[in-house]
Amino acid sequence: MKNPLTGKVSLIGAGPGNPDLLTLRAARAIEQADVVVYDRLVSPEIMAMVPPRTRRIDVGKMAKFHKLSQEAINELLVSLALQGLNVARLKGGDPLIFGRGSEEAAALREAGISVSYVPGITAAQGAAASAGVPLTQRGLATGVRYVTGHRAKDKPLDLDWASLACEDTTLVVYMGAASIGEISRQLMAHGLPATLPVLAIAHATTPRERKISSILGVIAADTALAGFEAPVLFIIGHVAAVHAGTDAAGVLQQAMAEANA
Amino acid sequence: MKNPLTGKVSLIGAGPGNPDLLTLRAARAIEQADVVVYDRLVSPEIMAMVPPRTRRIDVGKMAKFHKLSQEAINELLVSLALQGLNVARLKGGDPLIFGRGSEEAAALREAGISVSYVPGITAAQGAAASAGVPLTQRGLATGVRYVTGHRAKDKPLDLDWASLACEDTTLVVYMGAASIGEISRQLMAHGLPATLPVLAIAHATTPRERKISSILGVIAADTALAGFEAPVLFIIGHVAAVHAGTDAAGVLQQAMAEANA
Repeated sequence: MKNPLTGKVSLIGAGPGNPDLLTLRAARAIEQADVVVYDRLVSPEIMAMVPPRTRRIDVGKMAKFHKLSQEAINELLVSLALQGLNVARLKGGDPLIFGRGSEEAAALREAGISVSYVPGITAAQGAAASAGVPLTQRGLATGVRYVTGHRAKDKPLDLDWASLACEDTTLVVYMGAASIGEISRQLMAHGLPATLPVLAIAHATTPRERKISSILGVIAADTALAGFEAPVLFIIGHVAAVHAGTDAAGVLQQAMAEANA
Repeated sequence: MKNPLTGKVSLIGAGPGNPDLLTLRAARAIEQADVVVYDRLVSPEIMAMVPPRTRRIDVGKMAKFHKLSQEAINELLVSLALQGLNVARLKGGDPLIFGRGSEEAAALREAGISVSYVPGITAAQGAAASAGVPLTQRGLATGVRYVTGHRAKDKPLDLDWASLACEDTTLVVYMGAASIGEISRQLMAHGLPATLPVLAIAHATTPRERKISSILGVIAADTALAGFEAPVLFIIGHVAAVHAGTDAAGVLQQAMAEANA
């Protein structure tokens, strides 16, 4: 039986960075929390929404200086909830997409603590809306796929290149700044053309947003030259040629004509 | 030059159905609109957020009775904006994922009308949060992929089965109720095991939510037996074995032990 004095934890997607893109449920959970536990992917603009009275714990900073492991974060969340606190655990994007939300939830449930998930707008969706790039589009992309370019320490990228090199699917690479060279080489080696459009975006939806429009053959060089700070998101595929401000109508009309043919 | 008396159009993701999952920006745009244009994927709970004074146009209903084409919807949006109205164009999920948002935006921009996108929580994210199923998870899925099971009239499903049959990637099928039989057969023919977990969800995050936990070999029969109403979303992959309420901790611990090995 649950102890009625035990707190609860909401695993909350804080979205891509702009506080306007929080869900109503996330904004309310942040407002009502006793303590907010956050990491480096949560923007300063989002943290400015946390009421001044609310305790804040930066596990990103702790991780940098004290090697705070995922297990230690799990224990911290359990301990806060057992103190009777209402905990808002903020994560960039969505807690169930590259967010390790389910690992934290499993540890909390094992300790008898009530957990809920609040979905968040992904960085990919924020970048797409901000740049005016569709993630799927008749005639250009039948679907969209998210992968991460982040490597576990000393391990090679664990990706199925043959499956990924699918020209009909928009490929979104998270945390790819360090590995975009390897990723683009592998995708070309497995059949994607060097001329395939790519959009690189950092800090999408925030005042620090930067983007580069390029192609698969030179995106790694372009990103390095531009000196983008991690995390950088890459949108790889024909849809990346559609932009607000470019000849989007022309690209789309041709694609739809082909789709209807 | 833009006519200052011309209205503007926001292409807004209304999310999976629960109004709490609207973004703050979407909620504000709905509140401030002169007219809301919506279709059948926008839930009645979301429509209840529209102020009583605001004009509503149901293009889903018009499409059913009058064969309203995408072109006619584009023309309607242009015509409303040219009347000086502030238009909220509501779409289920996200306007740039299976939403044809970019087609509407291209038509509007061509007519000199200002357009913006407001991203929305996808049905996949809503379903994942509601069921407690991660879309990616160390040791279970290195990425996630969205495709649609919707067929263009009289055409076969235009999907790259060899690329889709990737056991390390969570596959989310939108609008798959009519085609899940063909989809599951093709995925098994291309190498996915019949025992691969599948979660089917209809009306996720709303009071009408229904879900079935099954496996690839029998999901088509299970969904047909349950009499799910379209649209139905399928989450196919090892992550679908992780649920709030099942032995999630056990499944995850094994997966993480394998990932760290």
